[in-house]
Amino acid sequence: MRFYQKSLRLPAFLPGCHVITREILAALPELATIRVGMLNVFLQHTSASLTINENADPDVPRDLEALQRRWSPEDFPYRHTEEGRDDMPAHGNASLMGVSLQIPVGDGRLLLGVWQGIYLCEHRRNGGRRNLVLTLFGEENAG
Amino acid sequence: MRFYQKSLRLPAFLPGCHVITREILAALPELATIRVGMLNVFLQHTSASLTINENADPDVPRDLEALQRRWSPEDFPYRHTEEGRDDMPAHGNASLMGVSLQIPVGDGRLLLGVWQGIYLCEHRRNGGRRNLVLTLFGEENAG
Amino acid sequence: MRFYQKSLRLPAFLPGCHVITREILAALPELATIRVGMLNVFLQHTSASLTINENADPDVPRDLEALQRRWSPEDFPYRHTEEGRDDMPAHGNASLMGVSLQIPVGDGRLLLGVWQGIYLCEHRRNGGRRNLVLTLFGEENAG
Repeated sequence: MRFYQKSLRLPAFLPGCHVITREILAALPELATIRVGMLNVFLQHTSASLTINENADPDVPRDLEALQRRWSPEDFPYRHTEEGRDDMPAHGNASLMGVSLQIPVGDGRLLLGVWQGIYLCEHRRNGGRRNLVLTLFGEENAG
Repeated sequence: MRFYQKSLRLPAFLPGCHVITREILAALPELATIRVGMLNVFLQHTSASLTINENADPDVPRDLEALQRRWSPEDFPYRHTEEGRDDMPAHGNASLMGVSLQIPVGDGRLLLGVWQGIYLCEHRRNGGRRNLVLTLFGEENAG
Repeated sequence: MRFYQKSLRLPAFLPGCHVITREILAALPELATIRVGMLNVFLQHTSASLTINENADPDVPRDLEALQRRWSPEDFPYRHTEEGRDDMPAHGNASLMGVSLQIPVGDGRLLLGVWQGIYLCEHRRNGGRRNLVLTLFGEENAG
């Protein structure tokens, strides 16, 4: 049984949903040594979110962003407005989609479905860099 | 400390939310041997989702389905349309509800509340069979 | 590798979102002994939910509550109405936000971001007391 835990500081992203599966895998070469386990990806922010969705057609993240504007519109009678028009909608969408993902690990790889990718959705216009905590744990391969 | 990991291939479901607690328990007889631990249920798809909700009144899953049509309507200016009118709404609802559940395990059973059941929500009209990965880990009972 | 699991019975809350980070920490003094691990917070109910969001400005939870009324309105043609006008909207929001949180643990503390707090959102007008199951696991500090 082993635990690995790392911080991963992402570059600043434009508003919208961005596939970050590759960045996560690059930060976790230890994944290859885990026979069976789990990966937790945790975003330490309240105005962006993590989600798993289709990673093939670039129209999917664009449509997700359009849906997010429907779910938590800027044009809504918010009280919390002093941090900008895009801040409270960002908090709303962060609660809808969540900031913590659990992905099973088997035979040294993430057991994502064929079409699944890990997305960071940036809900602010100028969110800046975002920090992830990656926690990988499980049983190691024999030998 | 033990890990168990299994694939569970579900039958094709009609659109809507379906209680699958029994199918999950039937696939995991090892649950009875775990004194304290966690179960992760992971859906390897992007157009269906997993959720925990009231498992008693069959009107609850019907109303959940109606809410899903409100959250991610078919009648919306999506770009991603080539896979059918029900595909992008399915991706939207998959991001809203999620595809990964964590349930605590104690004394050999899932620590769900009295009214809680595990649902698979099928968001496509012809989604076909769906695959779950079940990952159970924890400390075993003594003796 | 250690597992700790506890029940935490919260007082009855008014409708709305309430920071419960302090109550969770007070119930888990063992957290200080964990070098690296995970905490799962699980709510055993279907008409309230758990979320991580900004814990500074009290307008944020008020706006979240207003968004929840938009996401799952009381004025909607529900079938499931016999438990009160606020029951099915509560189930809807419980599926949107979820009832299970995963938070990484490092060096004896929760690795929440600076502005992140753990919220219980009470979706019923008279939801009564709510039960959490806290499951903490990980590697202990040496010595």
